[in-house]
Amino acid sequence: MTPSAATLNRLAAVVGETHAIRDPREMAGYLTEWREILTGESPLILKPGCTDEVSRILAIASETRTAIIPQSGNTGLAGGHLPLPGKPLVIVNLDRMTRVREISAADNTLSVDAGVTLKAAQDAAESVDRLFPLSLASEGSCRIGGNLSTNAGGLNVVAYGNARDLCLGLEVVLADGRVWNGMRKLRKDNTGYDLKNLFIGAEGTLGIITGAVLKLFPRPAGQATAFIAVPNVQAAVDLLALARAASDGRVTSIELLPRNGFAFVLKHFPARDPFAMPSPWYVLLELSGAGDLGALMEASLADAVARGIATDAVIAQSEAQRREIWAIREYIVETQKKEGGSIKHDVAVPVSALPAFVDEALAAIARYMPDARPMPYGHVGDGNLHFNVSQPEGMDKAAFHACWHQMNEVVFEIVLKHGGSISAEHGIGQTKTGHMSEIKGAVELDLMRGVKAMLDPFGILNPGKVLP
Amino acid sequence: MTPSAATLNRLAAVVGETHAIRDPREMAGYLTEWREILTGESPLILKPGCTDEVSRILAIASETRTAIIPQSGNTGLAGGHLPLPGKPLVIVNLDRMTRVREISAADNTLSVDAGVTLKAAQDAAESVDRLFPLSLASEGSCRIGGNLSTNAGGLNVVAYGNARDLCLGLEVVLADGRVWNGMRKLRKDNTGYDLKNLFIGAEGTLGIITGAVLKLFPRPAGQATAFIAVPNVQAAVDLLALARAASDGRVTSIELLPRNGFAFVLKHFPARDPFAMPSPWYVLLELSGAGDLGALMEASLADAVARGIATDAVIAQSEAQRREIWAIREYIVETQKKEGGSIKHDVAVPVSALPAFVDEALAAIARYMPDARPMPYGHVGDGNLHFNVSQPEGMDKAAFHACWHQMNEVVFEIVLKHGGSISAEHGIGQTKTGHMSEIKGAVELDLMRGVKAMLDPFGILNPGKVLP
Repeated sequence: MTPSAATLNRLAAVVGETHAIRDPREMAGYLTEWREILTGESPLILKPGCTDEVSRILAIASETRTAIIPQSGNTGLAGGHLPLPGKPLVIVNLDRMTRVREISAADNTLSVDAGVTLKAAQDAAESVDRLFPLSLASEGSCRIGGNLSTNAGGLNVVAYGNARDLCLGLEVVLADGRVWNGMRKLRKDNTGYDLKNLFIGAEGTLGIITGAVLKLFPRPAGQATAFIAVPNVQAAVDLLALARAASDGRVTSIELLPRNGFAFVLKHFPARDPFAMPSPWYVLLELSGAGDLGALMEASLADAVARGIATDAVIAQSEAQRREIWAIREYIVETQKKEGGSIKHDVAVPVSALPAFVDEALAAIARYMPDARPMPYGHVGDGNLHFNVSQPEGMDKAAFHACWHQMNEVVFEIVLKHGGSISAEHGIGQTKTGHMSEIKGAVELDLMRGVKAMLDPFGILNPGKVLP
Repeated sequence: MTPSAATLNRLAAVVGETHAIRDPREMAGYLTEWREILTGESPLILKPGCTDEVSRILAIASETRTAIIPQSGNTGLAGGHLPLPGKPLVIVNLDRMTRVREISAADNTLSVDAGVTLKAAQDAAESVDRLFPLSLASEGSCRIGGNLSTNAGGLNVVAYGNARDLCLGLEVVLADGRVWNGMRKLRKDNTGYDLKNLFIGAEGTLGIITGAVLKLFPRPAGQATAFIAVPNVQAAVDLLALARAASDGRVTSIELLPRNGFAFVLKHFPARDPFAMPSPWYVLLELSGAGDLGALMEASLADAVARGIATDAVIAQSEAQRREIWAIREYIVETQKKEGGSIKHDVAVPVSALPAFVDEALAAIARYMPDARPMPYGHVGDGNLHFNVSQPEGMDKAAFHACWHQMNEVVFEIVLKHGGSISAEHGIGQTKTGHMSEIKGAVELDLMRGVKAMLDPFGILNPGKVLP
């Protein structure tokens, strides 16, 4: 139901007209995600400046049964932050809430407004010689509220966990406008039910996260970073075990890249292939900590080559070389756009199942669409691959994207066979709600619906997301 | 309401009479906790052998509105697992459910029945050269179901987190007997709401945990363990920061002990004081990992002495000496019983607030009961102290215990002033429900009641626990 002009005016009055966007041209940047796959419409985008304004917005929304969509950095990949096609809704965007509330090196905590960008949180931590380890491609634009609402993963999960693991406390505005103040700085607190983790990963369907207490860590004294040619996916898994044991648990990133992904990067970006021969797979391995990690990396890789786990490797000898290696991994994300249509899968399986999963999924895709170009890359340590499929050369992009759902089915069937997840780190958003009934048992869906009904009885928080 | 004989018979029939205890003498071991402070009564103790039996028990309980108490190893310290005084209830004890379902070194996962003891879980991990790092005084008797239901903490939280952080998946029998199968082995899974963390720490009031997938870690190659004299609590906090930085994050335990606690140990147990002079406070510090940790510890402690953070220290030179040091910490728990009455506080504050908190709490106790003998000990890294108070010498134990609530109030006021928790790792159980309305805001209590009503609409799961 479209809200009345009177309701829209009441909502706009909370933030003031300066921060209430009604002009469609001004709205564009909030309504399309960067891959330009998903887009939506809105009658009003509200940009509150503080928790109290969010609270007043939701009180009005609740009273008038006005559905709203919480939005953070507009970097989500599952469309949780955008209106559904043809269903314009009011958006509450937290970009203005960028206050660092408190930072404590002694407690290793950082308390922030939810609109602080991930990069700003990382920088705040660095300013007191600490590390906030969450790291992902969109870190310059994505914001803590969105990171928590999607339980973001990224490049360092193997060492530090997901966003959920990095959060000690939360402040949440509930559907009726009440504020739950759970901004605790405690490492241990067993006083009643864990509410925090209900809101984390709920994609704004249970409340709006407006503040968070984040965990900080000691900054590692240094890194050793290597780019490694490996013969197959099993070798990447074996390399993880080898490096973990050899480095006493200092593996902070281990990323898998397929040859065709690297080839795309070489074609479109100023990157170079350090090896004489192409390899079917590559691994980016990073160790972080104190001591002579370079020597440790060298010994590990010599061992890996001796065992046939690696065929060739280069170790960064400078920060510039380290950036060069990381750039390959980062270009992989952008390069897909340059190769036309790309059907996305963000999946996870138990780590030991990665090799079989990749083999089976590649075979299934080859059967379904022989000329499609799968390029599975991602986080070996978490069993999490972005099993994306680029369109066959010369195929019409729209025609390829029309196969999105069917291609998903092909991949997801194999994911589920291995006890995996069809959304490892991006969330359900709007793009995967249709799969919920196939991946969740009736009991789990019932429990989720119960949680939703309890926290959002009128269904005004991000309707149509997460739950079908 | 006392269940009818017919209902009791139906419940007993699920497990068979052999596993249904009705004899009060046989029941005794299940109805009193080891400190002998809390005790309860029951008309029937059921010992199911599998998840399906738990499911059938709860289906009957739900149908007949029969309240039940889930019980694990009977080692809880907040009475969550015992009937309230004068309110006999049926107990469902999981001691027979001790199956290790699956163990995977490759995935670093261990799947178990909830009745597996913590020690058995540790041993299973060790059998595949892995570590399950949860470690606490009662580890020989406590069981995984109880560890998860109370989100147990213990000695290694500074490095590995609480029980919540060590769990990937759960199997839970709901109030109506349905089984939620959330036994996932995934490191990343963002498909809908996080239900797992609702049941963890809920002390059996929202469902009965019957199985869990636990996280395993590489076994550290070695340890360095030291017993250190420190001048004050601030020094212990500073020592943590110093050791963490010097060891590149390898601090796996840092325990604080007060002089009087150590003196009690020396009096009652075969322990010896390694130092020439008594110190007001002591720290047990352990580093775990590879490399020459002994040398690292030595350098750290020399640095600490130079900075006045430590006044003296001994480093274990053998596993026997390491055990000797750990024995001091373990004896502290038992020694309190030997000194008469002991009023317990399991509290946490932000780590940086520990020194001020201890000063203020000691002063407040001295004002309230000048001869009482406080002996705060515990986990510096988590800001978690067992701020227990032994009775004045010669005082009547019962008269002292009559002051339990008032003494709690004295300590809790200061805990709350520092943004702390009045139950850091033991839970609310039955002993702290009375404090919930003072420590939780109305919004948080409302949310908790909503969760309870949704998951246990007839209030049959551990009634009177957690929520007042």
